[in-house]
Amino acid sequence: MNAQTKITPATHSLITPRVKEILSWYESDNPGTKANLYRLLMTGRLAGTGKLVILPVDQGFEHGPARSFAPNPAGYDPHYHYQLAIDAGLNAYAAPLGMLEAGASTFAGQIPTILKMNSANSLSRLNEDADQAVTASVADAVRLGCSAIGFTIYPGSDAAYDQFEEIRELSAEAKSVGLAVVVWSYARGGTLTKKGETAADVIAYAAHMAALLGAHIIKVKPPSDHLELDAAKKAYEKAKIPVSTLSERIQDVVKSCFGGRRIVIFSGGETKNDTNALLSEISQIAAGGGFGSIMGRNAFQRPRDEAIDLLGKIIDIYAKA
Amino acid sequence: MNAQTKITPATHSLITPRVKEILSWYESDNPGTKANLYRLLMTGRLAGTGKLVILPVDQGFEHGPARSFAPNPAGYDPHYHYQLAIDAGLNAYAAPLGMLEAGASTFAGQIPTILKMNSANSLSRLNEDADQAVTASVADAVRLGCSAIGFTIYPGSDAAYDQFEEIRELSAEAKSVGLAVVVWSYARGGTLTKKGETAADVIAYAAHMAALLGAHIIKVKPPSDHLELDAAKKAYEKAKIPVSTLSERIQDVVKSCFGGRRIVIFSGGETKNDTNALLSEISQIAAGGGFGSIMGRNAFQRPRDEAIDLLGKIIDIYAKA
Amino acid sequence: MNAQTKITPATHSLITPRVKEILSWYESDNPGTKANLYRLLMTGRLAGTGKLVILPVDQGFEHGPARSFAPNPAGYDPHYHYQLAIDAGLNAYAAPLGMLEAGASTFAGQIPTILKMNSANSLSRLNEDADQAVTASVADAVRLGCSAIGFTIYPGSDAAYDQFEEIRELSAEAKSVGLAVVVWSYARGGTLTKKGETAADVIAYAAHMAALLGAHIIKVKPPSDHLELDAAKKAYEKAKIPVSTLSERIQDVVKSCFGGRRIVIFSGGETKNDTNALLSEISQIAAGGGFGSIMGRNAFQRPRDEAIDLLGKIIDIYAKA
Amino acid sequence: MNAQTKITPATHSLITPRVKEILSWYESDNPGTKANLYRLLMTGRLAGTGKLVILPVDQGFEHGPARSFAPNPAGYDPHYHYQLAIDAGLNAYAAPLGMLEAGASTFAGQIPTILKMNSANSLSRLNEDADQAVTASVADAVRLGCSAIGFTIYPGSDAAYDQFEEIRELSAEAKSVGLAVVVWSYARGGTLTKKGETAADVIAYAAHMAALLGAHIIKVKPPSDHLELDAAKKAYEKAKIPVSTLSERIQDVVKSCFGGRRIVIFSGGETKNDTNALLSEISQIAAGGGFGSIMGRNAFQRPRDEAIDLLGKIIDIYAKA
Amino acid sequence: MNAQTKITPATHSLITPRVKEILSWYESDNPGTKANLYRLLMTGRLAGTGKLVILPVDQGFEHGPARSFAPNPAGYDPHYHYQLAIDAGLNAYAAPLGMLEAGASTFAGQIPTILKMNSANSLSRLNEDADQAVTASVADAVRLGCSAIGFTIYPGSDAAYDQFEEIRELSAEAKSVGLAVVVWSYARGGTLTKKGETAADVIAYAAHMAALLGAHIIKVKPPSDHLELDAAKKAYEKAKIPVSTLSERIQDVVKSCFGGRRIVIFSGGETKNDTNALLSEISQIAAGGGFGSIMGRNAFQRPRDEAIDLLGKIIDIYAKA
Repeated sequence: MNAQTKITPATHSLITPRVKEILSWYESDNPGTKANLYRLLMTGRLAGTGKLVILPVDQGFEHGPARSFAPNPAGYDPHYHYQLAIDAGLNAYAAPLGMLEAGASTFAGQIPTILKMNSANSLSRLNEDADQAVTASVADAVRLGCSAIGFTIYPGSDAAYDQFEEIRELSAEAKSVGLAVVVWSYARGGTLTKKGETAADVIAYAAHMAALLGAHIIKVKPPSDHLELDAAKKAYEKAKIPVSTLSERIQDVVKSCFGGRRIVIFSGGETKNDTNALLSEISQIAAGGGFGSIMGRNAFQRPRDEAIDLLGKIIDIYAKA
Repeated sequence: MNAQTKITPATHSLITPRVKEILSWYESDNPGTKANLYRLLMTGRLAGTGKLVILPVDQGFEHGPARSFAPNPAGYDPHYHYQLAIDAGLNAYAAPLGMLEAGASTFAGQIPTILKMNSANSLSRLNEDADQAVTASVADAVRLGCSAIGFTIYPGSDAAYDQFEEIRELSAEAKSVGLAVVVWSYARGGTLTKKGETAADVIAYAAHMAALLGAHIIKVKPPSDHLELDAAKKAYEKAKIPVSTLSERIQDVVKSCFGGRRIVIFSGGETKNDTNALLSEISQIAAGGGFGSIMGRNAFQRPRDEAIDLLGKIIDIYAKA
Repeated sequence: MNAQTKITPATHSLITPRVKEILSWYESDNPGTKANLYRLLMTGRLAGTGKLVILPVDQGFEHGPARSFAPNPAGYDPHYHYQLAIDAGLNAYAAPLGMLEAGASTFAGQIPTILKMNSANSLSRLNEDADQAVTASVADAVRLGCSAIGFTIYPGSDAAYDQFEEIRELSAEAKSVGLAVVVWSYARGGTLTKKGETAADVIAYAAHMAALLGAHIIKVKPPSDHLELDAAKKAYEKAKIPVSTLSERIQDVVKSCFGGRRIVIFSGGETKNDTNALLSEISQIAAGGGFGSIMGRNAFQRPRDEAIDLLGKIIDIYAKA
Repeated sequence: MNAQTKITPATHSLITPRVKEILSWYESDNPGTKANLYRLLMTGRLAGTGKLVILPVDQGFEHGPARSFAPNPAGYDPHYHYQLAIDAGLNAYAAPLGMLEAGASTFAGQIPTILKMNSANSLSRLNEDADQAVTASVADAVRLGCSAIGFTIYPGSDAAYDQFEEIRELSAEAKSVGLAVVVWSYARGGTLTKKGETAADVIAYAAHMAALLGAHIIKVKPPSDHLELDAAKKAYEKAKIPVSTLSERIQDVVKSCFGGRRIVIFSGGETKNDTNALLSEISQIAAGGGFGSIMGRNAFQRPRDEAIDLLGKIIDIYAKA
Repeated sequence: MNAQTKITPATHSLITPRVKEILSWYESDNPGTKANLYRLLMTGRLAGTGKLVILPVDQGFEHGPARSFAPNPAGYDPHYHYQLAIDAGLNAYAAPLGMLEAGASTFAGQIPTILKMNSANSLSRLNEDADQAVTASVADAVRLGCSAIGFTIYPGSDAAYDQFEEIRELSAEAKSVGLAVVVWSYARGGTLTKKGETAADVIAYAAHMAALLGAHIIKVKPPSDHLELDAAKKAYEKAKIPVSTLSERIQDVVKSCFGGRRIVIFSGGETKNDTNALLSEISQIAAGGGFGSIMGRNAFQRPRDEAIDLLGKIIDIYAKA
């Protein structure tokens, strides 16, 4: 039948086997949440690969505007970040309430957004072990057309238990209205040393807790080769879990999130001048089975052309993984 | 900077000036609703053109399963319609609760869906002038990941005032959670003759009422050259509004919806054997500035290949308009 | 490893491929509702076959106690029916609030129960075309440990639209707390003749409407070979849908429920003295792909031994289908 | 009537006198809760015996993923545990929110589940005496189709009073929607020595408090022959309550839970290499009238075949008791 | 009719390009909120310029009546302040509940009002770092016909996180009923020195946080040339952000509020005897792109004529900017 041959395929909706497989993991979620996970996975240059690169701009809350935006003053304007995420072909853009409100109508539908619902700030003397303020609501996410809520937990801190109860309530509400839930899980405080915050065992543990709390997408820092907790160290050694390369550690973190049944992405961390080192890190994340990167300062603190170039290279790495 | 040149554009999100213009008309809506209008306008082969072709499958409620699906038995299966809408490159798929539930998870995110919230049925002796039952809720639309609710009103019928109050409440709730509102406006009952139901003045009037009720997208039948209401007839004659060609009448209907500031689409009506006549009608709708078609029986009652071929030709007409 | 060989399989939980397939159709339901559908499909002698035989005892409301229970006075005692359903190896027992309350604790967990939420009664002068009173709540179903709610609609009656709105609300609430929804769909009133109530086209239409309303399980009467509605008749004839044998008509009804993606069961109707005729009817239902029977008066109005014998034969028929 | 002889008994629903007796103890509970207790008691190879073996997998929260799953990496996948519990013929599977969500749909209805609602974690410096975060809700348990909620209390700790108030509220809500309540009762903190945490008097006391709080099922650790509290010691000695064998101590714990009117089960504790010692402990628990075991690490940290073998032996011991 | 010729055009409604531009920044707000922002921007002698001078009288709560009103006893009467704001041609008047209630009817509609919803007081020993009581509701603002709510946050204080959550809720409610939100953002407490409270970096940071929290209008103190936070200092130096003149610092604060997409106004601070110094400060605020002043004690603690004279000079400066 030559009818078929005349039809141009509706390329945007060509769901891939990999995206189908990923969506099947979220088996207790309603179709609304699945549709938003679909949007996150089917947008941008990585659409359909099951990989994600996300632009987060919540550093203003945590570090103030000058530290965040002075290196590339175009970033003072919230529209800049929406456009950067779109033009670089990213999967999503994450920011606090005010930042999203300032562009949500202009860019409605053009890029999936994640409403970052809590934030710390560096003025507070409670900054390390403290709670973060919850500065937005699920109703805000709905009226702003977001695809997901984002929430930070600090496992290990004195505030962790309160945070777990906050995310429980926000997550239940978000899921009931078809939103996805992204959890930033940063171990800190408690018995942890500073070095321990990014230890291989601690990152895997923090990621696992986020999965247990019901997160759809989990964001952690790339783990170091340090093992912090004695009991965990023994377990790693006995089971001969390799942690000497970043790629091996990423594999362990991914496995720790329900044997790979949850999306885990990794932060880019502080601004790095050595682009090659940054790209090499991304390569190892990709090689280890990481689902992608959430790249803030390394993206928006560069001139736009350089940022798009860098994000393009990162996307290329994940696209080939 | 040759960085730019290396970047493959994220084609899916290339909003066009026309879609931007259309979205600007919905100026009191929140970004969530705009994002859903964006999805309706940026999906399928007509993405970006400002035109829409939508597949509605609610005839089972109104005419029963045999009259609806026996001509092409594949249509008994709800998954068939999702896939048809996707493969034909349509903008959206509209159906009642059960039909959507039966495929909402399998096709989550792949095609914008419209939850048809009320329906008449041909068993009722109240069918002409009666109310329709509201068979779904806005909460259903949210959990199923729909982009819009759909609602039928019968201006002129004894039930119209109740229907106007129902759509008022459903519409307010839908808008508050970022959904779009599609109103099927079919004048009938009251003092109208059967011929009057599709009269040029009556269709324009019914479309205008839907706009006044706050609809984002309005669906009416293609108007005939009959003028039903005496007072209206005088006005048309005095102002020399041409209604002799379908294209002229479409122009009048579109103008009647806030001077063109609302999306108006036209139904395909009963199954037509004469495809050329059908395509000619579409050409005139397109020439008159109609925003598109909602094509049910003429799509799903044909064999799939023929349906995709026909829908492809309809899309081609709108794409060139 | 001979460890495996020592293990007696946990026979109760051997889900079958057929039950897995049936559960996959209910793709937008939460795991709680799926678990209750599982219970309905994995209980009794038909466990695992995808077939169901259910005992309904709501005739007391509709016909009064003497017409219902005098033929077999043991049935005045609510415990009798629970025990009958269990001993006969049925899948479930359905009854109004009071009947369930009177045995729910004694028989807790022993047989899935369906809380019949509305009922007509023969004292009312509104009996044919009227609404039924809603006599229980979803909260009642939850506290009584029911697996499903049951609800009757009368498509075609003047009350139908109100009933559709009632089941919309009850169904949404039931699904949110993990219950299944069973809809008894009996066309009557409106333009229908008495003969038309069981016409092949009308039964298929009534079943289709229940599916559109979101029912998980649909109960209708076995259809006759009459075709009631002119337009439907034409469609049946044009598509050459065979309706001369009951088995063919059952096939058409099942197909009319989303191409077979919903469970449709058939009532046993009035007490029949001719057991062979009854079993022959069941054989044709089974041959046509019907999912089972809901057998009230033909079960509980016989002496217990005869009832168990008859139900055993019915089960045997479905087990072989 | 030889009709009876033809009926194959519906084996799954043959409630036993022992299960009837146990259900009769929960005399103020609604039929919904009784139905869930029935499911817990009538599932698996111990169905009908009044004994239970349950698989709990909440160690990931408390010890992290590597310590929990590295010994048997198949356990990183949540589906593994559902299948293990089913294949080993256990009564139920208990886990935190995320673990259940990841398999609740695939395994819906196949095994009763217990939603573990709070958890400690070993990163916190507050781990011994502190509260646990409540990481799920009763509404989650309902939508996931769970049979019970599970909650840990630390009698003796500074957080105990808060925990008692939390379980009061969660328990009341769970009972109102027909769920059962399982309380993990672990005395710690306050004036207790480390040795005192498992002292015979303290375990009995902790179990009694859980019973007083309204638990349907109580989980404690197997008691040692140490008596911690002076006043209790005098009472034990005066009344000549024997505590020299584990079996005697189990008898005392069971008696302490309303003279045997509540189900008390015992944890398996840390991974034991000496299987004979483990089975001998189970034998003594069974001999003392313990209702069963909740066996986590000793089950899922072994290779699957060994786990099924071991659980089979444990079940055999209880089946003979 | 020469009556017409006598009509002075309703100057207040001649929206200017600048006001249109400002309103366009608030793109996710509903038309009700935009109408109130319009009122604030189109009232008084600065109507249409995009600049605002506002009279706040909430010092009674914070400093007591004598310190506030004894210098100009006419100010004890709430009507005095309404009339002063009107007669001086200001844009709005802000005060706590009781102050507004005492004149809201007399002056209804004559001047936009801002209901100041929280206040500290100098009796409390918690005054520096503590929370403020929320002393009014959004419903109060609505019934009093206010255009906005006003709310104070203390970023850096231990109470800040609670305040962020309070303003999140009040702001969401206010926006939903079409009110604007004005946030007074005063960094204090935590790790800040006294000097640091008005440091250039800290003021910019405090203003940015208010913007992130969703404020429409942000009020801060004029920044000093001190840089408080080490990390910020480095960022300022590296990016060569000039902060030596007030005008430069104002520019940095405005830029820190979404690149100029939010209205930022500056307080007049304590009563200044040196009017020239005060006016010079205003000139620099205006030169730096500040949107206006909120001038309390320097206005109402002077005799009315002097106040009107001073406010007139301030308005003149902004009008020329």
